[in-house]
Amino acid sequence: MSTETPDAPTATVTASDTFEAWLDDLRAALSTADASRVTALLAVDCWWRDLLALTWDLGTYRGTEAVADMLGAHLAAGSIRDLSTDTEFGPRFQGDDDEVVEGFVTFETPLGHGRGAVRLVREDGAWVAWTVMTELDDLRGHERAIDTHRSRGPRHSPGPGGGNWLDERRASVAYAESDPDVVVLGAGQGGLTVAANLRLMGVDALILEKSERVGDGWRKRYHSLVLHDPVWADDLPYLPYPSSWPVYCPKDKIADWFESYASAMELNVWTSAEMTDSSYDEATGRWTLTVSTPEGERVVHPRDVVLATGAAGEPNVPDVPGRDTFRGTSYHSSRHASASDWAGKKAVVVGACNSGHDIAQDLYLAGADVTLVQRSSTHIISQTHGIPAIFGANFAEGGPPTKYADLLASGTPWPLVLEFAKDGVKQTAAKDADLLASLEAVGFKLNDGPDGTGLMGYALAYGGGYYIDVGASTLIAEGRIKLAQGSGLAEFTPDGIRLADGRTLEADLVVLATGYRNMRETARRLFGDDVADRLPLVLGVGEDGELGGLYRRTGHPAFWYMGGPLAWVRIYSKHLALQITAKQAGISPA
Amino acid sequence: MSTETPDAPTATVTASDTFEAWLDDLRAALSTADASRVTALLAVDCWWRDLLALTWDLGTYRGTEAVADMLGAHLAAGSIRDLSTDTEFGPRFQGDDDEVVEGFVTFETPLGHGRGAVRLVREDGAWVAWTVMTELDDLRGHERAIDTHRSRGPRHSPGPGGGNWLDERRASVAYAESDPDVVVLGAGQGGLTVAANLRLMGVDALILEKSERVGDGWRKRYHSLVLHDPVWADDLPYLPYPSSWPVYCPKDKIADWFESYASAMELNVWTSAEMTDSSYDEATGRWTLTVSTPEGERVVHPRDVVLATGAAGEPNVPDVPGRDTFRGTSYHSSRHASASDWAGKKAVVVGACNSGHDIAQDLYLAGADVTLVQRSSTHIISQTHGIPAIFGANFAEGGPPTKYADLLASGTPWPLVLEFAKDGVKQTAAKDADLLASLEAVGFKLNDGPDGTGLMGYALAYGGGYYIDVGASTLIAEGRIKLAQGSGLAEFTPDGIRLADGRTLEADLVVLATGYRNMRETARRLFGDDVADRLPLVLGVGEDGELGGLYRRTGHPAFWYMGGPLAWVRIYSKHLALQITAKQAGISPA
Repeated sequence: MSTETPDAPTATVTASDTFEAWLDDLRAALSTADASRVTALLAVDCWWRDLLALTWDLGTYRGTEAVADMLGAHLAAGSIRDLSTDTEFGPRFQGDDDEVVEGFVTFETPLGHGRGAVRLVREDGAWVAWTVMTELDDLRGHERAIDTHRSRGPRHSPGPGGGNWLDERRASVAYAESDPDVVVLGAGQGGLTVAANLRLMGVDALILEKSERVGDGWRKRYHSLVLHDPVWADDLPYLPYPSSWPVYCPKDKIADWFESYASAMELNVWTSAEMTDSSYDEATGRWTLTVSTPEGERVVHPRDVVLATGAAGEPNVPDVPGRDTFRGTSYHSSRHASASDWAGKKAVVVGACNSGHDIAQDLYLAGADVTLVQRSSTHIISQTHGIPAIFGANFAEGGPPTKYADLLASGTPWPLVLEFAKDGVKQTAAKDADLLASLEAVGFKLNDGPDGTGLMGYALAYGGGYYIDVGASTLIAEGRIKLAQGSGLAEFTPDGIRLADGRTLEADLVVLATGYRNMRETARRLFGDDVADRLPLVLGVGEDGELGGLYRRTGHPAFWYMGGPLAWVRIYSKHLALQITAKQAGISPA
Repeated sequence: MSTETPDAPTATVTASDTFEAWLDDLRAALSTADASRVTALLAVDCWWRDLLALTWDLGTYRGTEAVADMLGAHLAAGSIRDLSTDTEFGPRFQGDDDEVVEGFVTFETPLGHGRGAVRLVREDGAWVAWTVMTELDDLRGHERAIDTHRSRGPRHSPGPGGGNWLDERRASVAYAESDPDVVVLGAGQGGLTVAANLRLMGVDALILEKSERVGDGWRKRYHSLVLHDPVWADDLPYLPYPSSWPVYCPKDKIADWFESYASAMELNVWTSAEMTDSSYDEATGRWTLTVSTPEGERVVHPRDVVLATGAAGEPNVPDVPGRDTFRGTSYHSSRHASASDWAGKKAVVVGACNSGHDIAQDLYLAGADVTLVQRSSTHIISQTHGIPAIFGANFAEGGPPTKYADLLASGTPWPLVLEFAKDGVKQTAAKDADLLASLEAVGFKLNDGPDGTGLMGYALAYGGGYYIDVGASTLIAEGRIKLAQGSGLAEFTPDGIRLADGRTLEADLVVLATGYRNMRETARRLFGDDVADRLPLVLGVGEDGELGGLYRRTGHPAFWYMGGPLAWVRIYSKHLALQITAKQAGISPA
């Protein structure tokens, strides 16, 4: 290498310099295991989110006091070793005035290998950490079989008996002589991603899917369904979409991809398989699950069960009188497949959130006479303005590699996401002003979401409750889809429905777009009260800043919840798998 | 951003500085369109490989004189504009003494967007280019629909008729009312990759696959087959393998992946479809192809045809007497599926290259009594030592992103690959010394490949002719697989075969591992002499440093050859697709 000395330039301090300097200080503070030395490096209104690395739990801590408490309980000498900057991406300045430095770190813990994301800001003339996220990335001794840990491949020379890879795969999924370590209920994105992670960690997982094909959860949805989240946020882990994929993916395309994913990731799936009975033996730590399959009844004995039937798995059907007298057709929105039978007929859609709007639009385009019933109000955003605002620059064309976009996303605790959302909601509403005004002009009622947090507030609390406009709002504003506003469904009549305020609507078809019940109700239906009564409700941001139920210990020693949109499951399936793997390996911290 | 002046360090010249300085000089030289000013920046023994960007052909030019001639004919003002360093990867030093600087560039040409790879070395105190590769990456106006050019996705609100994405895909592959622009014969890696690129460029391609499923070309191979090339070299374009995939991939796994690829890339494939007749109308520029399908006979009229049936598509079966008298079973190696029928029987495998060894091993492990007939000599390398030597650090765990590894690979002209191969062959042979000695001890004859260039020499010339040891050599050295050396198959007898030197071998099974004929013979069989007589032979490195026939104009205006291993087709399918797209769009340079 040549060594020459050019004229010394006027140097500017780079994002790397800033980050490395702060990290040096953090390294020194950590070595003392003194919480107050660490919190001295944080902003007053700091956020520390730990995903298993320090606390062996998912938790968000706000402010130096709460962080100090957490570190006091969990930070010992050696809790975080070999702390290094990850230079594969960043550090980088962010913000119009470069007021934030974002950087990523790797480190070692007693249990395994960690990663983190840090955002630095200036406070009183010094760079301090505004947000810190520390996560466990792999368990030592159980590292995911990827990259340097990937398998070399089957022996080219099969042993006696001559089994090849395909023979081994078939034997593996047959479970003729063995039991799976984990049974996962549901081959949607939740089930597929946790099973993929478990397999990579060496844990044998069997997915039970009640439909005929992996992906049917999407395939069987209504004809015109397209994903609402943009492609850059939606990769499944370990298998990104081709760069040719459309921004918004049609249901059948994603369904086929799920099927390919299960194959490419060598997941064990039984399709047309339904669990019909279950019991848990606390003494042996094993479940006994009875499964009906096309080949007959099977019994399996996993150590853990993951419920991944989906946040939209348990239809909420209003228990109103008169349904048996109604002469037309009625069903919950989850059963809506095709609108083609309803050309020229009267359709009433009860419920004005995403399913209600999509199905009303589907029916209108098929030639039906459609009325949408809105009981109270709906949060509306246009896809064009609202989605980029929610996903931001990290999940857009040319954004950071998904691995780093995800570290930044998980490095933004849910309560902070909700704080940011308020401004985003206002900005989007301003851009959508004409659309919203046209809706209000026909009597449609709008809201800004829980405490003005819009879609994210609804998504975190309930999983639904909003509408991302992809055309139905215009049809409503133009009166092409009629609106019955201000009252909910009270009863069915022979010719249609009656609302609570007495108005009647004639209908040949009534679609109940009335949402879904909490996943705990699915647990109750499938596993009984004994199990369900030990479980929390799913969703809702709790006192600890984390979502209820999902991705972590539930209170039942061998039952776990998994679910959420693609952007969440890609991230948190790993953390759930880590906890199950550690539990089964007997290495969970006390 | 803060601005502070640290103490000025002793600066070293980085790879970036070196590369940028040379690129500045190149930019200045190009602006003059003076070939001699450009060649002044090149090493005396330089290499310039152009893939369509300057010459609208694939060509390798060695030495400043040849490069000057090429530039003189093709370099005008504006031939290369907006030349920039691609900083996404590199520039970087290479070599034990940092004696090489590798860098990548982007540029614009009259026809489209270009990319390049450059290797600089020091000559007479100055950095000069040892290798330059310039390629066309996209056609202006026909850019591949990836990244910023990806589709937004189907309208969420389908128009009248209500077709969704799946409806459109089904209509597209039916060709009920339209013709494909291109027909591709064969859904192996060659066919799939060129069709994927064509589709992304907006050209409608239909693949005809004679087997029942995409991937059957691998699926139907013998039981124990595993890929010989390592995973890092084998991605299909636009859809890399998950990082969990084994280093050497089993045949069924790659077969399933091909099927998923066709789906994910939205390729139009007719399976169980065979072309039965063809004719070309020079006046209209259209083919008329008759295709037999399960639903009956179809006729299609593409403008171009791509033969992608594989370099191993046309079995070479020796025409020797007596086969009708032979009482046992005989077939070409391409028909070997399973060895399980031959336990306890006598099997003779004629031919000692890869297929011969693999099948001999397959039969031995199934319990057959196996004799391998080696007529002359074989080039042998161990997979353990030989494969990493061939693929190098660019196609290994932790290597550069595939995009850049490929630019470096295509930036190493075939004649230079062959020069490098000689040293690699010696080094591998030294590491394999014990294995090779053990083979020679039982009379097996070894060679170093054409002019000592080993596997690469054979691969570039013939597509085969070597054996990558994954266990058979040890069986031969130990006498478990018997060896008949020094003479080839002369005739069949009722009880077996007779070699040219008179020796007879008894056999219940004779497998003719006698290789494959040139792909031109497939063209002749399928399209007739009129077409085949206009075509070159496939493979062999020609005077122009490029492979015969593949990836470019053949001499027939509407016929193209596609094929090769995964590592080649991923790269060159793009160049082939660019030429077909430009031809059909009427924008090929004169």
